[in-house]
Amino acid sequence: MNSKQKDIRLVVVGSIGIDTIETPCTKRESILGGSASFACAAASFFSGVGLVGVVGTDFPESHRQLYQKFGIDLAGLQTVRGETFRWSGVYEHNMDNRRTLSTELNVFASFSPEIPPSYRKCPFLFLGNISPGLQEHVLNQMEATKFVLLDTMDLWINIARDDLLRVIKRVDMLTVNESEARLLTGEHGLIKAAQKLLTMGPKHILVKKGEHGSMLFYGDRIFLLPAFPLESVQDPTGAGDTFAGGLMGALASLGEVTEESIRKAMLYGNILASFGVEEFSLDRLARLDRPAIEDRAQLFRKMAMPA
Amino acid sequence: MNSKQKDIRLVVVGSIGIDTIETPCTKRESILGGSASFACAAASFFSGVGLVGVVGTDFPESHRQLYQKFGIDLAGLQTVRGETFRWSGVYEHNMDNRRTLSTELNVFASFSPEIPPSYRKCPFLFLGNISPGLQEHVLNQMEATKFVLLDTMDLWINIARDDLLRVIKRVDMLTVNESEARLLTGEHGLIKAAQKLLTMGPKHILVKKGEHGSMLFYGDRIFLLPAFPLESVQDPTGAGDTFAGGLMGALASLGEVTEESIRKAMLYGNILASFGVEEFSLDRLARLDRPAIEDRAQLFRKMAMPA
Repeated sequence: MNSKQKDIRLVVVGSIGIDTIETPCTKRESILGGSASFACAAASFFSGVGLVGVVGTDFPESHRQLYQKFGIDLAGLQTVRGETFRWSGVYEHNMDNRRTLSTELNVFASFSPEIPPSYRKCPFLFLGNISPGLQEHVLNQMEATKFVLLDTMDLWINIARDDLLRVIKRVDMLTVNESEARLLTGEHGLIKAAQKLLTMGPKHILVKKGEHGSMLFYGDRIFLLPAFPLESVQDPTGAGDTFAGGLMGALASLGEVTEESIRKAMLYGNILASFGVEEFSLDRLARLDRPAIEDRAQLFRKMAMPA
Repeated sequence: MNSKQKDIRLVVVGSIGIDTIETPCTKRESILGGSASFACAAASFFSGVGLVGVVGTDFPESHRQLYQKFGIDLAGLQTVRGETFRWSGVYEHNMDNRRTLSTELNVFASFSPEIPPSYRKCPFLFLGNISPGLQEHVLNQMEATKFVLLDTMDLWINIARDDLLRVIKRVDMLTVNESEARLLTGEHGLIKAAQKLLTMGPKHILVKKGEHGSMLFYGDRIFLLPAFPLESVQDPTGAGDTFAGGLMGALASLGEVTEESIRKAMLYGNILASFGVEEFSLDRLARLDRPAIEDRAQLFRKMAMPA
């Protein structure tokens, strides 16, 4: 929760959704979701952040107020006549499998992200998972980026590979899960896949492995980060976006982009994601503060410090 | 490879097998395997180690010589008229699934582990995966153990639970994989399962997660260890035993059992396992030396050091 005004050093572009989510224990209807929501909320603990996205006229005022409570700048939030993007899904088999029940693009179908003039010189940019064409459109509007993180999904790899490869070439870090890494490169082995991705443009490849942690590939080096062990996960939706948002927010706040600051930012992304999945939607993040983040980061360092 | 004579500070009890293994790329017939083989070989880089096991009169002299090349003490190796234990299995789907093709117990069926008098005052003991009744029989022969590590498998949890629980109560560390932890406790969540296992006797629960690393639970603390990332895994058979043997050998060489020495020993177990799976059987370990182990341990520390 970012109560003090901070300079906007990070721009986040992505989806804003109204989600209905079923887990083995609970069903929650019409809760705030979308990659931009999770990423902005996580980033807000570290840096001023501006959200670029679209909602319909049905978007509840309470959700908008929640964004504001996080201190998220909404100059780039478009409100368009019609309904907000809606997604519903169910987590099956002890949360191991997610199945989409429905996707209604609504106003998201004709989304064209416009970067407010005040954001265009921002040094940090997170291109959340939207079509590569739109990601490229955003990149073209930015004038002085220092570090761009790109997320994507199997859909775009399958139907818009050329567009995607063009955007990948222009970013500093690409984040993928294991199956996306394989799909993009045709390599089954994760190291070979990551090495191939490193030849496609980005200097850093972040591989997310969910509860098994994450790996950063850069140059000929690898950074290994286990996930923070959790007693119970309520809702894994948005974990990757929360990770990415926490990482980018922390990196923006650290200023210099170095091996050290990237590893530190990644640790914070990891910690933010661990909080996010403890409850549905942004519920846990909305009750979070910086001291709780630092406490868990410190606890994690003790757990993960090699002897 | 332990060329210099070292004091025998660790006793390893387990299976000795002749394996036939098929992977998506290769088939290797009649190669040396078994939990005791892997564990002793790994331990030999750190400590004098004595093997307690049984082979048949068909056991090739070359395998025995390989044990000796590792410096493994064979006073506890019984040779019995008949055939050696044989196992064959196939790794399917990019190595993600292992299917047993055949198991011939042979001389292993009537194995009764006898601890040579010279081993009985050994401070460190690894009870590899054999029936809990036999593990108990071994424990009863040891006179001054300081630290005992116990391994088991789903079979014993299912058919000999009471015997197993009796042995578990008497050991210092239990090693399980995720499904064994669940099967033993009825808890799906790993943290809850580990907490329950900690109430059953052992002060340390080591959860092995294969390529996803391992976790050590002790008291209210957790130690997280990612796996060393490998470009290609030739044969994962025996990885857990190699881990356990490396851990126990290192712990035996460090002398004092402390939080710090256990974490350090676990790191060495992790490193030994990463070498072991690079080739079939003991092939990679047979070409390994201590400097190569230290190099990889140092590289691993750099990869896994939280920022």
